[in-house]
This record gives sequence, C-alpha cells and structure tokens, in this order.
Amino acid sequence: MEHVNVFDFEIQARACMEPGAWNYYHDGANDGVTYRANRTAFERIQLRPRVLVDVRHCDMETTVQGISINMPILIAPTAFHCLAHPEGECATAHAAGRATSVMVASSSSTRSLEEIAREASGPLWFQLYVSTRKKTEELVRRATSAGYLALVLTVDSPRWGRKEQAIRSGFHTPIKANFTDDEAAEEGVSLTWEALAWLRSLTTLPIILKGILTAEDAALAVQHGVNGIIVSNHGGRQLDGVSPSIEALPQVVEAVGGRCELYLDGGIRRGTDVLKALALGARAVLVGRPILWGLAVNGADGVYQVLELLRAELELAMALAGKARLSSIDRSLVRVGEGM
Amino acid sequence: MEHVNVFDFEIQARACMEPGAWNYYHDGANDGVTYRANRTAFERIQLRPRVLVDVRHCDMETTVQGISINMPILIAPTAFHCLAHPEGECATAHAAGRATSVMVASSSSTRSLEEIAREASGPLWFQLYVSTRKKTEELVRRATSAGYLALVLTVDSPRWGRKEQAIRSGFHTPIKANFTDDEAAEEGVSLTWEALAWLRSLTTLPIILKGILTAEDAALAVQHGVNGIIVSNHGGRQLDGVSPSIEALPQVVEAVGGRCELYLDGGIRRGTDVLKALALGARAVLVGRPILWGLAVNGADGVYQVLELLRAELELAMALAGKARLSSIDRSLVRVGEGM
Amino acid sequence: MEHVNVFDFEIQARACMEPGAWNYYHDGANDGVTYRANRTAFERIQLRPRVLVDVRHCDMETTVQGISINMPILIAPTAFHCLAHPEGECATAHAAGRATSVMVASSSSTRSLEEIAREASGPLWFQLYVSTRKKTEELVRRATSAGYLALVLTVDSPRWGRKEQAIRSGFHTPIKANFTDDEAAEEGVSLTWEALAWLRSLTTLPIILKGILTAEDAALAVQHGVNGIIVSNHGGRQLDGVSPSIEALPQVVEAVGGRCELYLDGGIRRGTDVLKALALGARAVLVGRPILWGLAVNGADGVYQVLELLRAELELAMALAGKARLSSIDRSLVRVGEGM
Amino acid sequence: MEHVNVFDFEIQARACMEPGAWNYYHDGANDGVTYRANRTAFERIQLRPRVLVDVRHCDMETTVQGISINMPILIAPTAFHCLAHPEGECATAHAAGRATSVMVASSSSTRSLEEIAREASGPLWFQLYVSTRKKTEELVRRATSAGYLALVLTVDSPRWGRKEQAIRSGFHTPIKANFTDDEAAEEGVSLTWEALAWLRSLTTLPIILKGILTAEDAALAVQHGVNGIIVSNHGGRQLDGVSPSIEALPQVVEAVGGRCELYLDGGIRRGTDVLKALALGARAVLVGRPILWGLAVNGADGVYQVLELLRAELELAMALAGKARLSSIDRSLVRVGEGM
Repeated sequence: MEHVNVFDFEIQARACMEPGAWNYYHDGANDGVTYRANRTAFERIQLRPRVLVDVRHCDMETTVQGISINMPILIAPTAFHCLAHPEGECATAHAAGRATSVMVASSSSTRSLEEIAREASGPLWFQLYVSTRKKTEELVRRATSAGYLALVLTVDSPRWGRKEQAIRSGFHTPIKANFTDDEAAEEGVSLTWEALAWLRSLTTLPIILKGILTAEDAALAVQHGVNGIIVSNHGGRQLDGVSPSIEALPQVVEAVGGRCELYLDGGIRRGTDVLKALALGARAVLVGRPILWGLAVNGADGVYQVLELLRAELELAMALAGKARLSSIDRSLVRVGEGM
Repeated sequence: MEHVNVFDFEIQARACMEPGAWNYYHDGANDGVTYRANRTAFERIQLRPRVLVDVRHCDMETTVQGISINMPILIAPTAFHCLAHPEGECATAHAAGRATSVMVASSSSTRSLEEIAREASGPLWFQLYVSTRKKTEELVRRATSAGYLALVLTVDSPRWGRKEQAIRSGFHTPIKANFTDDEAAEEGVSLTWEALAWLRSLTTLPIILKGILTAEDAALAVQHGVNGIIVSNHGGRQLDGVSPSIEALPQVVEAVGGRCELYLDGGIRRGTDVLKALALGARAVLVGRPILWGLAVNGADGVYQVLELLRAELELAMALAGKARLSSIDRSLVRVGEGM
Repeated sequence: MEHVNVFDFEIQARACMEPGAWNYYHDGANDGVTYRANRTAFERIQLRPRVLVDVRHCDMETTVQGISINMPILIAPTAFHCLAHPEGECATAHAAGRATSVMVASSSSTRSLEEIAREASGPLWFQLYVSTRKKTEELVRRATSAGYLALVLTVDSPRWGRKEQAIRSGFHTPIKANFTDDEAAEEGVSLTWEALAWLRSLTTLPIILKGILTAEDAALAVQHGVNGIIVSNHGGRQLDGVSPSIEALPQVVEAVGGRCELYLDGGIRRGTDVLKALALGARAVLVGRPILWGLAVNGADGVYQVLELLRAELELAMALAGKARLSSIDRSLVRVGEGM
Repeated sequence: MEHVNVFDFEIQARACMEPGAWNYYHDGANDGVTYRANRTAFERIQLRPRVLVDVRHCDMETTVQGISINMPILIAPTAFHCLAHPEGECATAHAAGRATSVMVASSSSTRSLEEIAREASGPLWFQLYVSTRKKTEELVRRATSAGYLALVLTVDSPRWGRKEQAIRSGFHTPIKANFTDDEAAEEGVSLTWEALAWLRSLTTLPIILKGILTAEDAALAVQHGVNGIIVSNHGGRQLDGVSPSIEALPQVVEAVGGRCELYLDGGIRRGTDVLKALALGARAVLVGRPILWGLAVNGADGVYQVLELLRAELELAMALAGKARLSSIDRSLVRVGEGM
C-alpha cells in the first residue's frame, strides 16, 4: 500500500492495533476540545506565498541545541512504543537516525533508555517527569552516561489527564522499562520552579521545558535559565480546553524574545503545518501520534516513511511559498483568521 | 455500569425515564438556541494553564453566604424530583449533605419543604417564586422555621417559557407539595423591584436573586441590598435567544464590583466549566440537570456520584491549571474566543 | 393536529401542497445563501432580558401609517394565494381583519384587488410593481377606490430572481387577477427615483418602499418623501448574497433618523424575532411564508392561527424580556454577535 | 437535460468522465482547504444592492489589454482538455469566440497552440510556465506568430502541488502537444523576477503574471513593468492553506493602485461571484473548472452554454444590484463578513 499522506498511516494503524492501545494513543482528554482545536487552529492560519524566488534547492537544515539536523522536525516523546510494535522505541530511534532527525525518548518507554541509546543511529534527547529526587538523579545520570544530548522536562503533568475512551476500553499501561514496579507507583511529586536549580545542579546537558502555553510561564522559564521551551498541550491529553498550541505560540515568542530556542508540538500533520509554526516563531516542531502510526504499520521503516513524507511535504511547501531557506521564513508568511 | 463522566448519567437517565418527564427536564425553550449556547459558549473559552506550581493538594473549600462547603458546586433548584425517583427531593438533599454541598430546594418540589429539611444532612437554601403575598409570607415563614439558610428568589419567570417537546409529549406537571391546589393555580403575580423591600421585611435570611443576565439589573440588585446573585438563564428554559449565562457573567461581575456574592448556573457539565466560571468571577456554580440524571439513575447515590465526578474533575482541572487554591483563580486563567 | 409553532404549519403545508407550488413559495434565489442567512442572522442576536418589571399586561398595540393594530405584525405581500387555498387572498384578508392586523395585498394576486377588499374585515394596503404608466395609474386608482389605505411599492424587482427549484419543477405562475394577459406580459419597466414624484401625483395615500437594504437608498427614499420603508430582501428570492434584512436594519435606522416609519420582513418565524427587529429599530414586521403555510393547512383559520401563534409568542417574549410596552423596547435589549 | 446552473454541468461531467481524469480536474492540493475556501469566502461577502436605478439595459462590455469583450469573464488556462472531450482545446477556443470572450490557452494543452489558434474564432492569450530558455523562446515565438495577443506567465508553480485523489487514482497526465517528450521531462526551472526583463526582451505582447496573492509581489510585478496580474491560487491546486483568491484581492488592488489591469480566478461559479470580484477591484475574472465541465458534457456547445449561463447570471445580478454599467460597480457594493 502506498501512503499518500500521514493520514493513510493513521487509518492503517487503527486497523492493525489492539483497540485499547489505539484508544490510549489516540485519545484527547475528556471531550477532546483541545485535541480537535490543535488541528482546526492550523486551518485558520493562511499562508501568504511569495513568487518568482529561486527555489530549486530548499534548504531545511538547521540546529537544535547545537545539533545539526536535516529538517526542523523532531520526534516528540510518547509513551509505550511496544504497544505499536514489538521493537518499540528501538525501532523509532533507528528511524530517527536514518532520517537525521532527533528522537526525544520518553521516560515512560517500554525499552530502557540504555537499550534505545544502543540502537540509535542519531542524536537522542531524554524526556523526564520529575518523580522522587532519588529516581530523578538516577535517570539524569543514566541518560547522561548513555549519551543523551538534552533533557526535556515535561511540566504539564502534575497529574494525568483523563483519556475517557481508554478508560472505557479498560486499558492498562504497560510496564515502564526505566522504572522498577515500586518506582512506577511513586508518581505524584509536584514539581515547582525551585526544582529547576536543583535539576541544573545535576547536569550540564541543555534543559528544555515541555508544556508551556503562556507568556507568564515562558518568561519564568527564561529567568530560570532553561535552554529551550516546547510550546505544547500534550496533544490535547492533559487539561481539556486549553489553547491549541499553535495559538499559544505567539505570546511565548514575544515573552521569550529570542533568549532560548522555541519548539512546538500538537496537531502537526502536514508540511504546511510545520511551515506555519516556523513562520510564527518556532525553531522546529515535534511530531507525536504520526510517528506511532508509522511504527504500528511498518516498524522502523514506517517511522522513517512518516518522517520522509513530512520532509517532502515541508520541502514542497517551502518551494511553493517562495522560501528557499528556513531563515527567510517569518511572520509575513502567515495571515491569521478569516476575512479581509 | 461505570460512569466516566456526567454524560453517561444523561444517557442512562434518558433510557430509564418516562419520555414526557424526560422531555420536561431536558427541554430548552422554543428552538433551544440558548440551551445549546450554554454549552458551546464554554467551549469558546480557552484555559491558560500555569506550570511548576505545587498542586499536591488542591483546596476547593469555600463559603457561600457564610456557609462552609467542600467545593464551589451547589445543587440548583429544579422542580419535581419525584419524576426522576420516588424519594424525590429527599434523596437529593441526602446526597447534598453527604457531599458537603448546599442544595437549593425548589418551591415546586414534590416533597414538602419540611420533609426535605427532615431528610437533609447538610445546609439547604429555599427557592421561591413570588406568588400571592399571603402565600409568600407562609413559605418564607415555613422555610425559616424548617432551618433553610437562604432564600433564592427566581426573577426570570413572570411567565413560563415554552418547552415544546414537553408540550408535544402531553406532559402535565405533578402536584406541588408546598401548595394546595388552589394556591398552585394562582400563578401570575408579576414581581417588581419594590417587592424586595417587602420580602426583606419578612426575613433576616440572606436573599439571593436568580436569573439576572445584565449589568443594569445587577446594579439594581445591589442597590436593593441583595446578598447574592445567580447569573442564570434558567437552563435555557425561559426566554430563548438570551445570552449563555457564562457570557453574561463578566458584565455582572463588573457592575457588582464585589458588593455581593455571585454564582452562575447554565451548562455546567465538566470540572473545567466550573474552573472557567470561577476565573470569570463566579464564587460558585450551581448544577441542575446532571443532578436529576444522577437521581433518575441511582437515587441519592446517583446524585452523590454526579457531585463526586464533578468534584474530582474540578480538582484535577485545578491541578493541571496550576491552581492549588480557589483564591489563585482569576481572569488571567482564561482567554475568550478563537484566534491569536 | 395541534400546532406548537409556525414550523408545524410549514411541515404540514409542504405535505399538502403540490410540489411545484411548494417550491415556488419556498425557494430562495439561486443557492439560497440569503434565504438561510435571514434565519441564522436572528440566532446571532442575543436578547438582554430585564427582570422585576410589572409585565402582567403586555401592550402590543401600535399604529402603522396612523392605523391602529393589535400587534406589530403585518401580513407581507406574497403572490398567488390560490396555490395554497381555493379562497386565496380573500381568506387571508379575512384572517387579517380577525387578528386586527393589516394585510398587504400583492398586485400579483389570484383574486382581484376589489374582491379582496370586499372580503376584508380590516385595513388593507396595496403592493405594486410599476409596470406601464397606464397600468400603474389604473391600479392606483382602483386600489384607492377599493379602500386600500397605503401603497407599497416594491423596488427590489426590476427583474425576477431565479428560483431554481421551482424552475426544475416546471412551475408556471398562475393568472394574475388584476391584469389582463397582455398586461401581464408587459413586465420589465425599470423604475427610477424620478418615478416617485409621478406616483405621488397620482395619489394621496401613504407611499411605502419595500426592498431597501442600504443607508444610501434609505436616505434617498426620505428625500423623495416616502411615508415608510420596508427593509427587505424579498425573502431571499431576488439577489442571492445580499445581507439578511435584520443585519441591514441598523444602517437604515441610522440613515432615516426617524423621518419615516420603518418595517422589516425576512425570516420572522418566532416572537423573539419580532422582539429583536423592534429592538433594532423596526416599528413593525411583516410575515410572508408562514401566512401561506397557515393558508395551505387551514384556509382563513390557518392564517389566523399563525398570526395568533406569533402574537402569543411576542407577548410571552415581551413579558420574559421585562418589556410591558412597545415603547420600552430599545437597542439595549439586544447584543449582536458571539463572545464577551 | 436543462442546465439551471453550472453545478448541473459539474454533476453531469463527473458522471461522464473517467474517474482519474475527473479527479485530476477536480482535486485541490492536499486537504483541499484552499479549494473549499475559494467558495466559502464568496459566501461571506454580502452584496449591498441599490434600487430605483434604470437597469433595462445592463452593459457588460469591457476591454482586457485593449481587447473588446462582451463580458468580464474569460476562460482560465487549464491543462489537457482532451481528457474532457476529443476535440479538446479546439472546442473550447471555438466556444470562446462564439461568446466573444477570451480564451487563455494553457501551454500544457493536448492540441498544439497552432491548432488551437486555427480553430479559434476570437482572441486568444497564451499561458506559459518558464521551462528552459530555449523552449520558452520557442513558445513565445510560436505564440506570437500564431496570433496570440498576450502572454500569461504562471508564477505559482515552481513545483506541482499534490493532488492526492488523482495520485490515488493512478492518474498519469497525457502528452503535451506543445512539447516533445524530452522537453516535457525538463520541468523544474525556477523562475525569478530577473527573468521578466529577459521575457520582455523576447516579445512586445502584454505580459500578465498569474498566481500572485500578496501586496508585496503585486508591487514587485508593477515595478517590473507587467501589463496585468491574475490574483489566483491555481484553483487551490498548488499550496494548500493559502488565502482564497477573493480575500487576497483587496491587498493587491491597494498595492497596484491602478498601474496595471487586475484579474481574478478561483471559485467563480455564479454571476454574483463575478459581481463581488468586480466590486473588490478586479477588471475581469477567469473561469476554470466550469469550462471543463461544459466541455465534458457537450463539447464546444457545452462550453458556450456555461459561458452563457454565467453571462446571464451576471447580467441579472447587475440589474438586481442596481448597476447598469460595469463602471458603476465599486467597493460600496459589498460588505465583508457577518455581523452588523
């Protein structure tokens, strides 16, 4: 089967996955208002393409935290890849390297962070939730020693959002490879801004906060010396009713004023979505569910195919928008809302 | 059957109730424009969650008219609970006390206000429409002597709105336990602002007006010395085409300027709805139809389950929004409308 | 069968009428954009009800061109009533008088204007399109002598809009009782502002222009000394894509500045629609299709029932909005658009 | 079968065409967001009709690049007419002349530009993509010598947009009559503004740029001395997510300030669409897909019928809008967006 776009992977993944696992991946929290808004918000942003520009070669290379990548599209941290494919996160990491992208490995992985690092052929970042200090120190140490290049601290999840379809399915999360059973049961530490200094004391790796949606928190993050921010609503899976991440981006851009790198996830399904996020100020985007669809359909090859689809779409979108380089993409490329 | 959210109770209640009674509870007036708008208006309000706040314990305790309650969610006055369950308002009152909330008993109850008070295990308020002076005096006296702690005067119902599905069902309202047949037939007194001084002369209980939707009337209410206002469109059951109550709230907040307590009902179905109402200035909300769904499905236990669902949702929403106390919830938590 | 609202008449009329005739009545022009917008525009206008007002008696009496009527709802001119009922316009006129309203008889009637006047039990106005000068003079003379009290000149129809469903039905318009065959074939005179002076010279009756949608034309109408303006898009049957009439009303109100009476038709189906039109500056509204539905379903009685339904709905809407008199209805009663 | 509007041709064409070819004609790029927006944008523009104007004769004659035409509706360049009808572009050209319109022949035609010119009974323009300099010079020379009166340079297609339904159909584009196989394979030259001077040096024909959507590019076009601009998003077939062309028109009008002629294509299906485009500043519009529908259904006669339908609709729309001449159509005829 040919895959014309990433939605083809979605359809096929749904057909081949166990329903409970599918629901777990697919669900937004509660009524799914934010989950859907992540997509519709992109449709309300119009592109303003420029013409008669030399676009024979569209250069998508960039860096994130100093790491060279072939395109401004990273793999977002998502949990439990073994639900999609027996090789789990190892397959995903393999594909990421092949695509010269960065994979952000979730601490809630079904393969240990060391196994993932062993299989990876490219740069990795490590996502963590702060649980106990002891466990966090261990994870930071292990990730550093396994060669992860940055820490992504998820800050939108002091509790878990309610995925109601997954609850109805009676879905139970699998075992987390990085945790013992006792450790996995210890969730519930509520992280505060003070903890950032402590985390900084543990590591020299770049620290990136994931899950910021307001100018206020973006300003605080910069004050606390973070190296990057991922504007994110956790794919609509935490607090239902928050802004689509693309609509939260402009206020974060303004508050940060270039003092750290900004990324965005949430609803990226098309090359033009990436283009819009870049135009509004993101340095790169992260893709979550589509990676899992590719993984479910075709393992590492499927993940690679999804990344290549998005890369090709972004490259074509840049060409048709008259942008041969990422540096020429700015706010003038978009117009927000309907009407004249 | 597990109830994942209050809509599960709605579905089950519809299945187990007599159609005419269901229609009576469910109907909005006429075309249901306001009934539907009560819900869609909440969806247009976006939450702006804060992160890295200590939310291990989210405190939802507050007071209404000086009464301590465990959460800012009260039971709205609704008529004829015996249509949902043989124990009627007595079951509802029982559940309210168990949840440490306040029940506002309707004067159009199918159990007498004294019976309800006898069964209640927590604080009660009494809702009344002003009919004749004689009857009103009697009801105020009876409510006071039965231990009700506040009077809620409904001001949006000089006539009854047309519930057209109920009319088509041939539905007839049951007997009102607080009225003789002759008294029940006497409806149609048109209350004016002057009557408030008279009502005040009858009682020392707090007087709360229910059904205000404009800044103008809110200002008049304060001038007439009321102790509270419930911003309400009667669940969309009176004048079709009026504002959703959540959209009317800001103008009332501004007009009142803190001079009395403000509450809101209309369309509350999720913890995030409560959070949005509080952010826009309500001290507490009242829930109507979901209580009846719980009552129909499972009597007092069903009412309690509905209240606990909402309490748990609000608690989770506060945690995910970074608000550990009600006092930290303010206007900056919401953004109104689409776009950037 | 009980009719709970005017839509019940619509459903029943559709079932009992010949499809081609139904389509002719029902159709908007072309894609029906304006036809539908006439309704949706009303739904976007929110009512701001006032409370604690004495509304025991809501007085809907008013005058139009000095004629006393029981409610601000007139019968709009519509063509070919014999398609709905054998008694045609005579039945309609009978019902209008019974309801103490005014019927505007169409010049494209299937009963002659004299017959209609003979059957009428209340005041009549006469609608005309200007065809040849000779014929117009004749119609004006006949209408005056038959006792019609005002002339309504339709100005939005220099040609006929395309009713595409009616065209597909192969519908042919019936014979016009006020015209000979030769006269009926003579359509196509293009009326200009200059013709108003000529028309004025023919009659002392009030002259009302029907079909104005802009401030510019409203100002011209006043300059040319008209006695009234009907803001109208011909029920969406002429130029598809024009403003819903209720949205055109405010600019006309402002341009006219009280110098002549203003009426509105287009999409009135509910008492609350009437209330909104009055709040935005109309002195009265005209109802078209619902009258034909009533006529089709039940002849003169059906027309009367439709008028009584609307009267009762308006009366209830006034009571629930806190307006006991038409004179207390003003712009503060409505809020336009969504959001806060 | 009678064709009441152009959508009747669409339905019939879909039924009679090979599915792959239909998909190729019909598809918008990717998700079709822009394809659909081209239509919905027209529906959001309201007409403000004027009354009591002499519209017995509505004059639609105008000129484009000095060529007299009977109506401001041209035939847009579209590829591969032989997919619709064996006579292909020759039939289209024949109909264009019969309707006294201008056909813009696509360089991707299935009949050679010389054949088309031989069959044409009216003025032709020639559309080209710039491929190699050598081929471009040849095409310009051939078009000039075959009598084409203007060159339309498409600037929005440095690459081809993805028509996903056509891809799924396994559709392959037919042979281009103006190209050898080798030449057809040579696509991919990326044209820049500098090339305009070179193109100008090749010809004295008017040069028109097709595919501009921004004020910035419109200003550049004028600076480079073009004779006309077609505001276009290629029927939603290139970059998905760009503005509907009618929404991009005002900024182009303002940037150009009358320094060259402006045309528009994209979503024109009704006479009122033409009227709206003229009101917003277009001198004429171009119609694409409806021409192909007419061609598929009925060859040259079908194309002529489509043009006549649009002509009749525009003429009626002008009459009902109170505009007897194109020169009286201006911005005051439209109101953009909903609300009051």
